[in-house]
Amino acid sequence: MTNLDPEIVEPVDDLLRALPGLKVLHSLDEREAHRWDRALDPNAGLPMAVVLPHTTEQVQQVVRYAGARGIPIVPRGAGSGLSGGASAVEGGIVVSMAEMTHVEIDPVTRMAFVEPGVINVDLKAAAAAVGLWYPPDPASIGFSSIGGNVATNAGGLCCVKYGVTTDYVLGLTVVLADGTAVDLGGPRLKEAAGLSLTKLFVGSEGTLGIITRIVLRLVPQPPPSATMVATFADLDASCRAVLAVASSTRASMLEFMDNVAINAVEDIHGYGLDRTAQAMLIAQSDQPGEAATREIEAIAAVCRDLGAEEVLVTADVELGETYTAARRGAIPAVETKGRLLLGDVGVPVPELGALVTGIAAISDARDVIISVIAHAGDGNTHPLVVFDPDDADQAARAEVAYGEVMDLAIRLGGTITGEHGVGRTKKAWLPGYVGEDVLRLNRTIKDALDPMGLLNPGAIL
Amino acid sequence: MTNLDPEIVEPVDDLLRALPGLKVLHSLDEREAHRWDRALDPNAGLPMAVVLPHTTEQVQQVVRYAGARGIPIVPRGAGSGLSGGASAVEGGIVVSMAEMTHVEIDPVTRMAFVEPGVINVDLKAAAAAVGLWYPPDPASIGFSSIGGNVATNAGGLCCVKYGVTTDYVLGLTVVLADGTAVDLGGPRLKEAAGLSLTKLFVGSEGTLGIITRIVLRLVPQPPPSATMVATFADLDASCRAVLAVASSTRASMLEFMDNVAINAVEDIHGYGLDRTAQAMLIAQSDQPGEAATREIEAIAAVCRDLGAEEVLVTADVELGETYTAARRGAIPAVETKGRLLLGDVGVPVPELGALVTGIAAISDARDVIISVIAHAGDGNTHPLVVFDPDDADQAARAEVAYGEVMDLAIRLGGTITGEHGVGRTKKAWLPGYVGEDVLRLNRTIKDALDPMGLLNPGAIL
Repeated sequence: MTNLDPEIVEPVDDLLRALPGLKVLHSLDEREAHRWDRALDPNAGLPMAVVLPHTTEQVQQVVRYAGARGIPIVPRGAGSGLSGGASAVEGGIVVSMAEMTHVEIDPVTRMAFVEPGVINVDLKAAAAAVGLWYPPDPASIGFSSIGGNVATNAGGLCCVKYGVTTDYVLGLTVVLADGTAVDLGGPRLKEAAGLSLTKLFVGSEGTLGIITRIVLRLVPQPPPSATMVATFADLDASCRAVLAVASSTRASMLEFMDNVAINAVEDIHGYGLDRTAQAMLIAQSDQPGEAATREIEAIAAVCRDLGAEEVLVTADVELGETYTAARRGAIPAVETKGRLLLGDVGVPVPELGALVTGIAAISDARDVIISVIAHAGDGNTHPLVVFDPDDADQAARAEVAYGEVMDLAIRLGGTITGEHGVGRTKKAWLPGYVGEDVLRLNRTIKDALDPMGLLNPGAIL
Repeated sequence: MTNLDPEIVEPVDDLLRALPGLKVLHSLDEREAHRWDRALDPNAGLPMAVVLPHTTEQVQQVVRYAGARGIPIVPRGAGSGLSGGASAVEGGIVVSMAEMTHVEIDPVTRMAFVEPGVINVDLKAAAAAVGLWYPPDPASIGFSSIGGNVATNAGGLCCVKYGVTTDYVLGLTVVLADGTAVDLGGPRLKEAAGLSLTKLFVGSEGTLGIITRIVLRLVPQPPPSATMVATFADLDASCRAVLAVASSTRASMLEFMDNVAINAVEDIHGYGLDRTAQAMLIAQSDQPGEAATREIEAIAAVCRDLGAEEVLVTADVELGETYTAARRGAIPAVETKGRLLLGDVGVPVPELGALVTGIAAISDARDVIISVIAHAGDGNTHPLVVFDPDDADQAARAEVAYGEVMDLAIRLGGTITGEHGVGRTKKAWLPGYVGEDVLRLNRTIKDALDPMGLLNPGAIL
């Protein structure tokens, strides 16, 4: 009981007494450590306690305990969220799924039965051990949890060909706001019995229930990928190349990094990327056999035609993985340049050029650095607004620019968030994006399923 | 105004006066023609009128009109549903989407913008004209509508590799119970802004809203398929072959027909199928180039190893299509043998043998013919209980057998409906399948979105 904030002694004592079998963290350090996710939302509160359930039943007990006392609950996976969806609420209980990490793979039916605390890459490894593959690959695969991936309907690099998390979720066990646990869907590709409740909980960011078990569809491991890297001196030309590649091939990856991101990655890793390039595209093809080489050559030809400066093509999987790692490392690399406001705007691919050049104009107008990296093939970009948190004026300009980027995406027919979720940091832009009627529909469902409003209050709505 | 039922003159006159621009059918013949879908639910009511809107605004007008007067509404696609989800309600309004048939394909972003009355095969043709493909392929592709496919989350033959309808739905326009029209999702592969409302409406069988526009993801046309047909003298051996194929290959189709179905198809089409076989499997591979031949040979080898009698392999697309057509024609062929109760039970693939042999036992015990055809690779079967509607005793035994098949599927860890939906004819089994808590969750959402209960009342719940 070191380091314990005196004013919460009584509620924590009550929690410990009421749920004796449950692992509870309640030192100030531990509570502080669970205040934020990676979005570092300045409005995050200090939780009263952090609980680490090991079973669905324990999650039910916590939800019933909190419900009876009107205590808000914030479910948390690995805390790697980029929209503040796992920011703690002052005096609430953080339900961390970090110790629910069981994975079972059925190689015969190609299904995975997963607890939410499992790290994405650990699921991938368990599947790979029997020749199977779980496609969704947010750049955070090394440290984000499957529970968080499901709660945000996470995307990633492979989505241009393989879709997003929801496309692989067949079943869920969910603890509802009243403490009831329900099994939705199951290990079947087809399910038409009743409303599509499984899919409703995917992407619900912990606001409708707490996911405690996940049934996922797996597919056979794809063949080794061929990789292309192309650099461009002109931003707009690179976006035209993205559109041409996306509409003429089935690239299994089509990523974009701008000059700031290239240099940030080089500063740390020294891959030997061209620091003068305005844009770099990284594409892969995983067609079987010779088809991969043919497809990647076709992608390279499109890039050359559209003005690429340097084009590298390789069938070497390890070299290809180096470039993918460079792309995966882009957000952490840019993060070293200052505090970030992380955008996640997506547009129809034909509007990618307008988005990227529009962001450059916002960057100029607001005099802040905005680095753009993108899952370009599906139109989903991550504009990273970099600022010095000690420079109040710059921080304010960054905030304005961050909002202007979302406004721009909306004007271009896009979304304010493609794969990170609304959480708390994008909430202010949701009404302007979806409009009053859709917002009311969200609210109607939230109110019906969580009438007391105790499940992740303040997230999304 | 020929043939008009006098007691509805007044309400129909009111409808015609209130919505003068709307196409309304109200003769007794026309109303009778919209009483049933293909399930021929004996409890279907006679609607007061059938309206054929041409725009979302007209659908909104109808919903507001009905809402103000407490008149139930049944949305209807092509009326090809097999669970009575489009059965009319006595005195209600049938909203037929049959004349909302606009299709627009964007070959650059690989999206289709579709009105709900479009027939599946017409969408496929429009996509194919620009080298694209809409995978979902219920056996009814020739006459079922995309709106109905979305409303039931329809499956089909390709699902073993390509998933179900919901996997291709990116956006919807939906008219809600209060007449509000909302645009959900849109032409973007990634969307994480707010709850997954698009997916909630997929499979909701017209109980939460009326879908008036659909944004679908398309993919490039797959390469030509290689086909294998194998016959078995032993049911169980055929199911072991299904499991072995499904867990060792990426077949793009893996279908099953039993002896009754083979003979029913032969009676009509005379394809030359082996009338003595107890089971026939039809598999396809659509891997690029030589890979298709390699995969189909591997599938054939598995079937031979597991006791297939005759195995035919062909790279001839037309011949392959003949066998697929035989499979697609199976339900209509069996339908000529008597009235059908159409099952749609799905089990995990390892339980397929137990399901098929269990159904044979039910058939024996109840002394009714049950023909089984199946999308075997994904575990989804269609047991067709055949009976003479003029034989009351047989009809009663058929009804019992139909329920026992669903009970059996539940015991085997399966679902009561994989792709047809609950509609009205499977409603009695939903509580036993999903349980009280999940049923309540369905009801909570239905009540929140349709508090007056006027949208397709009696369907699902």
